[in-house]
Amino acid sequence: MTDFEVDLVREMDNWGTLTARQNPHLRVATPPAFGGPEGVWSPEELLVASVGGCLMSTFLYFANRFNVAVEAYASTARGSLNKTPEGLRFTDFEVAIRVTVPDESARETAASLRLKEKLEKYCPVSASLNCPVRLDLSIETETGRRDLHRG
Amino acid sequence: MTDFEVDLVREMDNWGTLTARQNPHLRVATPPAFGGPEGVWSPEELLVASVGGCLMSTFLYFANRFNVAVEAYASTARGSLNKTPEGLRFTDFEVAIRVTVPDESARETAASLRLKEKLEKYCPVSASLNCPVRLDLSIETETGRRDLHRG
Repeated sequence: MTDFEVDLVREMDNWGTLTARQNPHLRVATPPAFGGPEGVWSPEELLVASVGGCLMSTFLYFANRFNVAVEAYASTARGSLNKTPEGLRFTDFEVAIRVTVPDESARETAASLRLKEKLEKYCPVSASLNCPVRLDLSIETETGRRDLHRG
Repeated sequence: MTDFEVDLVREMDNWGTLTARQNPHLRVATPPAFGGPEGVWSPEELLVASVGGCLMSTFLYFANRFNVAVEAYASTARGSLNKTPEGLRFTDFEVAIRVTVPDESARETAASLRLKEKLEKYCPVSASLNCPVRLDLSIETETGRRDLHRG
């Protein structure tokens, strides 16, 4: 069992400061959509950040385990909060992941590993949510990506 | 529907930088328990932070709606990650919340509002997790808290 502990102290209005271990202090506030300020992480965004971050850790774990070199990794994660009969709930997440590997051989190895299925199954944060987390995983070589951008 | 979007770019090893709106950039890395560095927020901690932050927002929403003045709010949230037959999963969260209100009358009003039940039902982040989030909500007056500390 691994425990993760986070403290929170309200500073004013709906602003607070989150602390954990020796991590930098992290300010949190209600999102602008619900009357909070701009320029501060909201709890809802921290949840989406957590999903994106955990998918990256999980991806890199498998890439390392199967000796796939990863040159670049970037993602855009989106979580949708909706009114349901039970109240406001996250109803789905979508994460677009763009990975660059050094060459065609690495790309083929990565493709053979069914990494999307592994992420769906083993990312602990996604797997702890009660709504779908849909992944779009693109793995390209540096050259392939250049060609793509050239059109 | 309200969407929350967060971008992530890997910087090196298992470190990345999270961005959303005009929020300060937020560094994320695998936690020390899994080989990551000290002093950086992990995805697991961001999830726990999200739970703690969303409970605060939800509490303050109800306090405001029912005219309960809140002098102080602090919480400690803990999430437990466990090995299950399906892989690593968060299996439970515990959040201890300590609220201070100005006087006994406010404390009685707060007590009558069943705020713990409201938090359990309406905090959108907690309600989007597929494991229990146990709350321990303590509402005290400034005087009561002083007496408590005096023993």
